[in-house]
Amino acid sequence: MTVPKVALAPHGMTDTAAPRLPYPYLLFLGDTTEPSFAKTAFGLADWAADRCVGETAAPGCTVSTGLPRLTSAEAQAAGARALVIGVANQGGVIGESWIAVLVEAMEAGLDIVSGLHARLADVPALAEAARRTGRRLIDIRTPPAGIPVGTGRKRSGKRLLTVGTDCALGKKYTALALHRAFAERGLAVDFRATGQTGIMIAGGGIPMDAVVSDFEAGAAEMLSPDAAPDHWDVIEGQGSLFNPAYAAVSLGLLHGSQPDVFVVCHDPARKVILGMESFALPSVEEVIELTIRLGSRTNPAIRCGGVSLNTASLGSGEAEALLGAESRRLGLPVADPIRGGTAFAALVEACLA
Amino acid sequence: MTVPKVALAPHGMTDTAAPRLPYPYLLFLGDTTEPSFAKTAFGLADWAADRCVGETAAPGCTVSTGLPRLTSAEAQAAGARALVIGVANQGGVIGESWIAVLVEAMEAGLDIVSGLHARLADVPALAEAARRTGRRLIDIRTPPAGIPVGTGRKRSGKRLLTVGTDCALGKKYTALALHRAFAERGLAVDFRATGQTGIMIAGGGIPMDAVVSDFEAGAAEMLSPDAAPDHWDVIEGQGSLFNPAYAAVSLGLLHGSQPDVFVVCHDPARKVILGMESFALPSVEEVIELTIRLGSRTNPAIRCGGVSLNTASLGSGEAEALLGAESRRLGLPVADPIRGGTAFAALVEACLA
Repeated sequence: MTVPKVALAPHGMTDTAAPRLPYPYLLFLGDTTEPSFAKTAFGLADWAADRCVGETAAPGCTVSTGLPRLTSAEAQAAGARALVIGVANQGGVIGESWIAVLVEAMEAGLDIVSGLHARLADVPALAEAARRTGRRLIDIRTPPAGIPVGTGRKRSGKRLLTVGTDCALGKKYTALALHRAFAERGLAVDFRATGQTGIMIAGGGIPMDAVVSDFEAGAAEMLSPDAAPDHWDVIEGQGSLFNPAYAAVSLGLLHGSQPDVFVVCHDPARKVILGMESFALPSVEEVIELTIRLGSRTNPAIRCGGVSLNTASLGSGEAEALLGAESRRLGLPVADPIRGGTAFAALVEACLA
Repeated sequence: MTVPKVALAPHGMTDTAAPRLPYPYLLFLGDTTEPSFAKTAFGLADWAADRCVGETAAPGCTVSTGLPRLTSAEAQAAGARALVIGVANQGGVIGESWIAVLVEAMEAGLDIVSGLHARLADVPALAEAARRTGRRLIDIRTPPAGIPVGTGRKRSGKRLLTVGTDCALGKKYTALALHRAFAERGLAVDFRATGQTGIMIAGGGIPMDAVVSDFEAGAAEMLSPDAAPDHWDVIEGQGSLFNPAYAAVSLGLLHGSQPDVFVVCHDPARKVILGMESFALPSVEEVIELTIRLGSRTNPAIRCGGVSLNTASLGSGEAEALLGAESRRLGLPVADPIRGGTAFAALVEACLA
């Protein structure tokens, strides 16, 4: 069996009611000069290169994903169906200098996809161009219509959820890496995206943090529907049960996902909750215990498959020593998916065991 | 000090950013023939009689709250500022036969307040009448704009939250009864409403189940702002941490409310989660333990004040025996606020202790 470089959604998202995005994409870098603000574009180039025909930018941009620089017309000729705004700037706003590029893209036949806070249709020039060209303005942050309340009904198929000691420390990356590893082993597996970048990478999904709270668990149930008994859904986690701002998102996602296996994501360099100095980060053990406690409400067989440590702040020797020490201490596989290696292979095997 | 019959919001809701409703109200009973469908009107007549000038109805209505039957013009002359739809019918729709009454009310100078699922402005005749008369169509289910994400910051003042073994078993009633009892003792206290009927009774509040999940804890923080050190907010609970559909709402409300004291509401006749036969109701002890476990994240001093049992299904002797037996078993005050008496007085004292 030939495994594509990025084996995303081999079984598609067509079995869910969640909307599917138009791809291949042309990645738009805006007028970015600082690579970290273009992390959505880099994430797409890293994880969904087969869905990206190239990149384009507004005047002044100095970063590149390494994909071919194309005009919208060239991209459309190469098969692109949408321009994706690959920029996550501060405030999540649509830059003045971007508008001409976005209008030109619609005139070339591309839809526009955005994960910014600002809504595309609220920019008069974009709304007018969309009407005139018949193209779609797609805001990823808008959840699909018709999300039901949760039922708690046990669904067929297997599910893995990444959870965390906090936000923004590797839950999406870990889920993507596990999805890729499962696909490389020839398993039937879907990556289920729950955040903006993940949704663009997967070509579909539900922005769980934008769902009305009464429907949070129902949205998670909708995201990972009944599947074949040996099929895996690898679900991108959100927030943390210990985050005083976002725990509601995490609990609704946990209940609705009813995971068989979860992987705890943690950054050993982080000591407090992001942006909340007075809240200590929970330990990995606390997260394991509480996730089992709460998750067993909808799946009594829930278990921890292991731990994903973000060791970006450490040198390679230091990282390896820490992974080994933590694995011995916890009695679980502990790996950094970015470093891969035998530790990550052991984590994958433990999840599948 | 004279305590009004219903001492609601003696300190007002003006210190929060949550919207305030226009009252006094004229209660609208629709064309209801079954009292249980008019429970919003009965709740208002029971708990906010001083905010209600009378009732009105559409042709065919056979129920009454006992308040004077008035035309909209008479109600307006008596000081009413809004007609409140006091009906919660199946489907939450606006009846055809209601429209003439609602239009007449706007023509008489009243705003319209609704907690139905259907939006008032989506009915063309109502939208047109509102434009023509300059009156407001207020949908209680729409949360206020500008809710921030939670911060976890400890706020001044004291807070009590009602929690439950499930939905719909007395959390609103218990919070209202505790609020009344606190006010009767001369304490500075506000009832903080989190659902449709509660919001109408309080004249303000936030419909927590309609808030986007990323902002759930932030909405709860907004609902009970900083207050004087000896001031109490009595907060209406929602859902249950054990309800597979609604636990996200409950956890966001718990984290954001940062209660000092909680009261567990329970119906001893209920054995499974409402509408979910395969989910056993948790025990009161399980709810106490998990509420302390999760609530201590934002208030390490959280404690259980006691238990509120809904004994509506029992005779008076049976109920009294059960309250006593449960109190001995749990080592906590256990009361039915509807029955009141010394058991309820003991619960109030334990909450304040």
